[in-house]
Amino acid sequence: MGMPLELNTLIVTKGNEKRLEENLFVLQKEGYRLYPLEIPVDVRKTLDSNSSGTALIKKVEWEKNTTTITYQLISLNSTN
Amino acid sequence: MGMPLELNTLIVTKGNEKRLEENLFVLQKEGYRLYPLEIPVDVRKTLDSNSSGTALIKKVEWEKNTTTITYQLISLNSTN
Amino acid sequence: MGMPLELNTLIVTKGNEKRLEENLFVLQKEGYRLYPLEIPVDVRKTLDSNSSGTALIKKVEWEKNTTTITYQLISLNSTN
Amino acid sequence: MGMPLELNTLIVTKGNEKRLEENLFVLQKEGYRLYPLEIPVDVRKTLDSNSSGTALIKKVEWEKNTTTITYQLISLNSTN
Repeated sequence: MGMPLELNTLIVTKGNEKRLEENLFVLQKEGYRLYPLEIPVDVRKTLDSNSSGTALIKKVEWEKNTTTITYQLISLNSTN
Repeated sequence: MGMPLELNTLIVTKGNEKRLEENLFVLQKEGYRLYPLEIPVDVRKTLDSNSSGTALIKKVEWEKNTTTITYQLISLNSTN
Repeated sequence: MGMPLELNTLIVTKGNEKRLEENLFVLQKEGYRLYPLEIPVDVRKTLDSNSSGTALIKKVEWEKNTTTITYQLISLNSTN
Repeated sequence: MGMPLELNTLIVTKGNEKRLEENLFVLQKEGYRLYPLEIPVDVRKTLDSNSSGTALIKKVEWEKNTTTITYQLISLNSTN
C-alpha cells in the first residue's frame, strides 16, 4: 500500500499551463505531487531549459491521481 | 523558510465535517496537512475518541494556509 | 525530475524486521518512504494480514533509494 | 496529533555544516524536515544570502525531533 507522491521543487510547465488572469496560471500534472506553497520556485518550460521566471504556488489540489496547481508569476526572465 | 506541513494518518472531525451527499463529506482544517488519498483511514470525532468509521480521502486542497479534504465514509462503527 | 516518495501510514514487515533489543526493531524498505514518527502506527506482517501490534517509529533514514526505520513495539496483538 | 514537518527546497547552513571529507558535509537542523534527495539544491549561508553553491543531498535522517542531512557540494559560487 502507501500513497505514491513526488516531491517537486520547481514548476516544469511543458507548455501546458493555462492563464487564468494577468500573472496567474493553472497547471495540471499526472500523479500526486508535493509542491511548496507561497515559496518562490523556479518555472521552466522543460526540465533542462533555463528558468523562465519565478512563481509562488497559491493552491494545490490532489484528486483522481492528478495534481492541479495555481501559481502566480512574480518575476520573468527574458532569455534570448 | 520552508513550508510547514503536518503529516496526518487519520481524520479527526471535531464535528466540523459537512455532508455533501450520502456518504461523502468535506472537512476544513487549519494549516497544510498531508493526508494519504485512496487509502482506508480511521475517522474519529476527537483524537482520543474511538474510531467512528473508516474513510477514503478522495480529494485534498491546499490554499491560504487551509486544507480541505473530501472523504467517502466506507464503513461505520456503531459505538454506543 | 522530482523525488519519488511513498506516504506510508502503517508498517508492513514482510518478516524482514531485525530485532535490535527487547522491543526495538529495524526494518529496511526499498525507495524513499515517508512514515510518521512518534505516532502509534499499526504493524502487520503483510498488507492484508491482521494487525500484529502497534509501534512508535523512532528513527527514519533515507539513503541510496532505501528507507530504514527503527521502531519500538508498544503493544502486541495475540492473533491465533 | 499528526507529525509536524517542514518542506525544504534549499539548504540554509547558518554556518553549522561540518565537513566530513572533501566536498561532503553534514548538517543538523531542528525538527523534521523534508528535503529532496539526489536533486540539485541551492546552498546558502542564510535565507537571504546569495547562493553559495549547489549540492546533492545524499542522506536524510530523522530522529528525536532532529533532521541530519549529508550533502555533497557539486558546484561552488565565488561571490565576492
